[in-house]
Amino acid sequence: MAVQPVETETASQSARPLSLEELRAVLQATGEERYHHKHPFHLLMHEGKLSRGQLQAWALNRYYYQSIIPIKDSIILSRGPDPVFRRAWRKRVVDHDGDATSEGGIKRWVKLAEATGLNPSDVRAGKGILPATRFAVNEYLNIVRSRTLLEAVASSLTELFSPQLITLRVDKLRQHYPWLANGLDYFEARLYQAPEDSQFAVNYVYDNAKTRAEQELAIQALRDKCDILWAQLDALYFAYVQPGWPPPGAFRIEAS
Amino acid sequence: MAVQPVETETASQSARPLSLEELRAVLQATGEERYHHKHPFHLLMHEGKLSRGQLQAWALNRYYYQSIIPIKDSIILSRGPDPVFRRAWRKRVVDHDGDATSEGGIKRWVKLAEATGLNPSDVRAGKGILPATRFAVNEYLNIVRSRTLLEAVASSLTELFSPQLITLRVDKLRQHYPWLANGLDYFEARLYQAPEDSQFAVNYVYDNAKTRAEQELAIQALRDKCDILWAQLDALYFAYVQPGWPPPGAFRIEAS
Repeated sequence: MAVQPVETETASQSARPLSLEELRAVLQATGEERYHHKHPFHLLMHEGKLSRGQLQAWALNRYYYQSIIPIKDSIILSRGPDPVFRRAWRKRVVDHDGDATSEGGIKRWVKLAEATGLNPSDVRAGKGILPATRFAVNEYLNIVRSRTLLEAVASSLTELFSPQLITLRVDKLRQHYPWLANGLDYFEARLYQAPEDSQFAVNYVYDNAKTRAEQELAIQALRDKCDILWAQLDALYFAYVQPGWPPPGAFRIEAS
Repeated sequence: MAVQPVETETASQSARPLSLEELRAVLQATGEERYHHKHPFHLLMHEGKLSRGQLQAWALNRYYYQSIIPIKDSIILSRGPDPVFRRAWRKRVVDHDGDATSEGGIKRWVKLAEATGLNPSDVRAGKGILPATRFAVNEYLNIVRSRTLLEAVASSLTELFSPQLITLRVDKLRQHYPWLANGLDYFEARLYQAPEDSQFAVNYVYDNAKTRAEQELAIQALRDKCDILWAQLDALYFAYVQPGWPPPGAFRIEAS
């Protein structure tokens, strides 16, 4: 049989800890291999080959992910014993839920969904999202609830890779889907929010993973988070692109 | 946009409760619509159109589902305040984990996987299973942990539909994949275990759902469970049948 070799979780428990530079390199390599920038759904998006209905399905399903981010970060807040840590992490909840001066990421994502032609209250209600979206996204909550705080923090490290993907995406969305131009505020904000967050999280992981084994757990959390993002696009691709086989009860693309 | 109408969860809170016969009919209709007997992966299986590698991918991934069933049932046991309930439900843990006189369902599933040509210790280790399998199956644990005991019990009601599917499957597996014949003990046992279980669970739901609204919650739990089974086959189909696009790190079918 062709089972894949087990990966870095088997690294020796007794190996010396990685230096900060080595840790960064391993995290980067994990993203190269597993981050969803390589997923066929994104490739089609960037080539301008998705229909409006397919972009609706993406915006609708991804809303569920966006909507749980501040819940996920609130769980992490609730697990952080240190006020300094909580003060730093709290920024993430504000970024997504907003405050007196900013509407926040969730509202910005609704604007994107609206720009695709979806009804914003249907989006907020999550009508017709794929069950597989819920399952993958809920696993993110499982991880931050059930693993160590170190691993919960490390699972956020996909933000190391998002600015590059977002820069490309905004460019391609403007080029291929100009009718989306009013919906891109979410991405503009993430371009400066994400690097602040990931810098903090990398330093936290380096400072708090005292052994190589703990570093490996953190790397595995990042790998698992990549799987969560990837699986969301698999589900979209399977339901709305290739065979077009959405499960019972899911959003269906209107004949155009 | 083409969002599907919200389904029976919106049924009037004030409607009279369904009779036992009406409840059975609604549960049956839910299975007709959503149970995975209609999934294209199963249709291909029953037509003899799956390769050995595709059956390996199925056996390997489904093992993860099988392996959590007694964990799921132990969570339900832990939530049941009544010794009579626990004594009845305990049977399920025995059915899957075995006892002095029976090897149990998990071991039987490993034998099935072995009959496909997989290495049993790789199967037990879950090497190369699809992340989407984990996410869907873990959602079953989320449901039995976080919803009411009534809903946790109701989520088991896919057993109402399994004997018919298993009868067909055993027949078709023998016909199209005779080399699997030594691995079918799991299904033989389920044919008498499942009807006992589902009879108990239907009666429990009827006796404990005092209002129509509670009955609707139970029906929704069955619907969600069907989604969990369906999503597992979607993931297999997408990775190993149609475009053949397994995510990074997942089992790959050997060229034959």
